[in-house]
Amino acid sequence: MKIQGIEYEELAQEFGTPLYVYDADVLTGAITGLRDVLHPALEVFYSLKANPNISVFDVLREGGARAEVSSLVELRTALAAGAPPSDIIFLGPGKSERELAACLDAGVHAIVCESFDELDDIERLAGERGVRQRVLLRINPERTIGGSRLTMGGKPRQFGIDEAQVLSAGDLAKKYRYADVAGIHVYLGTRILDAAVVGANTRYILDLADRVAHSTGIRLDTVDIGGGLGVAYFDGEADLDPADVAAQVNPLLEAFTADHPGTRLIMEAGRYLAGRAGVYVMAVRYVKESMGERFAIADGGTHHHMAAVGIGSFVKRNFPAVLLSRRGDDGGAGEPQPWNVTGPLCTPNDSVLKRAALPALERGDLIGITCSGAYGPSASPGLFLSHGYPAEVLVSGGRAFLVRRRDEPDDLTRPQQLHRAPAADRPRDRTPAV
Amino acid sequence: MKIQGIEYEELAQEFGTPLYVYDADVLTGAITGLRDVLHPALEVFYSLKANPNISVFDVLREGGARAEVSSLVELRTALAAGAPPSDIIFLGPGKSERELAACLDAGVHAIVCESFDELDDIERLAGERGVRQRVLLRINPERTIGGSRLTMGGKPRQFGIDEAQVLSAGDLAKKYRYADVAGIHVYLGTRILDAAVVGANTRYILDLADRVAHSTGIRLDTVDIGGGLGVAYFDGEADLDPADVAAQVNPLLEAFTADHPGTRLIMEAGRYLAGRAGVYVMAVRYVKESMGERFAIADGGTHHHMAAVGIGSFVKRNFPAVLLSRRGDDGGAGEPQPWNVTGPLCTPNDSVLKRAALPALERGDLIGITCSGAYGPSASPGLFLSHGYPAEVLVSGGRAFLVRRRDEPDDLTRPQQLHRAPAADRPRDRTPAV
Repeated sequence: MKIQGIEYEELAQEFGTPLYVYDADVLTGAITGLRDVLHPALEVFYSLKANPNISVFDVLREGGARAEVSSLVELRTALAAGAPPSDIIFLGPGKSERELAACLDAGVHAIVCESFDELDDIERLAGERGVRQRVLLRINPERTIGGSRLTMGGKPRQFGIDEAQVLSAGDLAKKYRYADVAGIHVYLGTRILDAAVVGANTRYILDLADRVAHSTGIRLDTVDIGGGLGVAYFDGEADLDPADVAAQVNPLLEAFTADHPGTRLIMEAGRYLAGRAGVYVMAVRYVKESMGERFAIADGGTHHHMAAVGIGSFVKRNFPAVLLSRRGDDGGAGEPQPWNVTGPLCTPNDSVLKRAALPALERGDLIGITCSGAYGPSASPGLFLSHGYPAEVLVSGGRAFLVRRRDEPDDLTRPQQLHRAPAADRPRDRTPAV
Repeated sequence: MKIQGIEYEELAQEFGTPLYVYDADVLTGAITGLRDVLHPALEVFYSLKANPNISVFDVLREGGARAEVSSLVELRTALAAGAPPSDIIFLGPGKSERELAACLDAGVHAIVCESFDELDDIERLAGERGVRQRVLLRINPERTIGGSRLTMGGKPRQFGIDEAQVLSAGDLAKKYRYADVAGIHVYLGTRILDAAVVGANTRYILDLADRVAHSTGIRLDTVDIGGGLGVAYFDGEADLDPADVAAQVNPLLEAFTADHPGTRLIMEAGRYLAGRAGVYVMAVRYVKESMGERFAIADGGTHHHMAAVGIGSFVKRNFPAVLLSRRGDDGGAGEPQPWNVTGPLCTPNDSVLKRAALPALERGDLIGITCSGAYGPSASPGLFLSHGYPAEVLVSGGRAFLVRRRDEPDDLTRPQQLHRAPAADRPRDRTPAV
C-alpha cells in the first residue's frame, strides 16, 4: 500500500518500525472541511494533547487551526510552530505557577481558569508583572447531555467551577484588577458522533454564557463551546459529517453573534483533526499458533498504541487494520483468517488486535493500524520495558519527513544515575602495610 | 513523615514534585527476606520491567538478586550496574535481532526462547558469531492454576511454545548446533498472594521440566519456575509471608535437586521486590468542592502512576495513601474526610484516589501513594499532555540520591522536528526586479 505515492515498505526501510505515519493531506482536509462549513465566526482550536507533534500542529495551523494547549511544552510547541499568542488558549485543572507565568509572559489570548484558587494565582502573578490577562471561566455544568462517549457535565469533577458557584459568585468583573474575567469555557463530552448532540451542547453553553454574564457582570470577549467531535473507530460507528454539525450549530451561532457582535467563538478539536491522519506501522517479527489460534508477534504494541482510544480505554475492540506490505514472495495473500496481533511486552494485555480478519501473515509483513493519529504515541506508556517512543513521519507533498526521531537506548539510560560510583571509580580497600 | 530520618518535605524541596522515592532498606529487606528462607539452590532474578531504574536494580543486586531483562536497555542497565552476564537471562515474546545479538555478544546465562522461529534465529546469529548460547524454552502450559490475578497458562497466548508442541518436537538436543537448548521457563501467573499457589505452580513446572527433558533429550542446566509473587495493595489483601512460600517450595526443590544436582533453579520477582519500596509523592496545587465532593488537584497523576497495578489495570481501587506533610500552619489535621485526588491531565480518568479518607487537605500539602515502586513510572504514559516523566530518588544510608532526573521541556521537544524550516530560515519570495 501507498501513501501519497510512497510505499509503506519504503517508509519502513528508511525510518524503521514501529513507526507512526501521518498524512498531511488528511490533516489539512480535516481542518478545512470543518472551517468551510462552520459559521465564519467560529474559530477551531486544535487540542495539542491529541497529538503534540510540532509538525502535525503546523499542518493544521496552516489550514487555519488555532492552538489549545495544556502544558508548558505544548505552549512552547505552539509558539515554535509560529502560532501567534493571540491564537493560543491554555487550559487544565492543575496548572503550575511556571505554566501560568509562561502564559502571562507570552500574552496568550486567554487562560481558561478552573478554580477560584487559580483565579487568585493569576491575579497575583499578573499583578507582579503589571499585565492584565484575559481569563475564561471553565464551568462544570449542572446537567449533562447524552450522546458522548465520556460525559463531563452533571457530576462532581476536578474540572472548572460548578455552574451554581459561578452564578452566585457576585460581581466578578470588578473583583479582579489583573485577571480580566471575560468569557467562559464549557466542555460537555468527548467522542461525539451525533451532530444533534453537538447542537444541544452548543445551545446549552451559549445560553449559560448569557446567564453567567448577567449574574456576574463579566464581558463576553470569548465563549469556548468545547468540542468533543469523535472519529468512527469501530464496526457500527460512522464519522460525523461536518455539514450536519454546521446545520446544527450555525443557526445558534448566527443568533448569538447578532446579539454579541464582538464575541470570539471557539470550538476545540483534537481527536477529530488528528485521529484519521495517522497509521501505526508494525512489522511482524514472529508467527505462531497457540491452542488453535494464530498469533503474529509484532515489533509494535500497546506501549505505543494503548491509548489511541483515549486514556482509560484499553483496546478491547479492534481498530481498523490493514496489511500494508508483504515481504514474503508468495504474492497471493489468500482468504482472511482470524489473527491475534501482539507486541513485544511481557504481558497478555499487550494485544493490539484480537482475532482480526487479516490475510495469512508472515515474518516481515507490515501491518497498519489506521485511525491512529490521536492519543497514540503521547498517551501510551512508551517507556514500558524500556523500549522507548517510536519514530514519527509526516508525509506532505509526496515527501516523507521525520518529525520525531525514535528513542535510542541512550535516551532512556541518560536521565538515570547509579547512586554509587561505578566499581572502577570507587576507592579500593586499603591493603594493610606489611 | 520521614524516610530514614529525612522529612519528605525536605525531599520535595530539594528535588521537586511529583517525585518517586525509593527506600533502599525496603528493597534490601525484600530480597534478603526471600533469600534467607528459600532453598539455597533457588536463585532470585529481579525482573527489571517492574522498575528499570539502575539504582533500584543495584540495591537488589547487592542483596543477591540476579537480572531478568526483556529489552536492550534493560540488558545494558543490568550490565552497567555490574551484573555479570552469567547472572542475566533475557526473555520476551518479540525480541529483535539487535536484542538477540546483544545477548550473544554479552554472553548472558540464557536466552528464554518463545517460538521455533526465534530458535532458528538464535541458531543463525550464534552460528555467525561462532558461539554456543544456552537457551531455555518458554513453555505455554496446558493447564492453568487458580489463585493468581492474571493467569498465563491454559489459554492461547503469544508467550512461549505450547506444551504439546514442545513435547512432540523430537530431539531438540541434537537439532541445533549453536543454540544449546538446556532448560525450560514457565510463568503461570502474576500478583499471587497465596503461597499454596506458588507451591502448586512450582510442582507443575518441575514435573514439566522432567517430561520435556525426557521427550526432547535436552539437558536441564536451568529451570526457571517463574514467579508472580504479589504485593497487597487493597483492603482485604495480605502480603505473602516468605516463610510460607519457602514451606511450599523448599521440599519440592530439595527433591528436584537431589535428582538434578547440577541444575540451576531460578525464581523471578519484580513487583514483589520493588513494589513496597516506592512512594509517589505529589503536592496539592488546588483544592475545591464540586457538587458536594472534595477534590485536591495535585501536580502528579495517572501519567506517572497509571500502571502501578500493572498495565491494563486502571486504579479502580485506591492504593494506600498518606498525608506526608502539611504546609498549612493549622497543625491539627482533623478527622479524615473523603477526598478525590486528581492530577493535571484533562481527562476525568486522571484520578489517583477516589473518596479516600484523608485529613482536610490544603494547597501545598504532600500526599504519598505508597506501595508504588513497581510499574509506576515506567509503565505509565509519561508524555501525555507533554508533562514528562518524574524525578526518582533513592534513599540509602540516610542519604537521598537523585537516581533519575525529571524530564525538562527540552527533553520532550528535542526529538521533534518541524517538517519545514522555521519561517525566519525559509527563503523569502523573490521580489520581481523592476
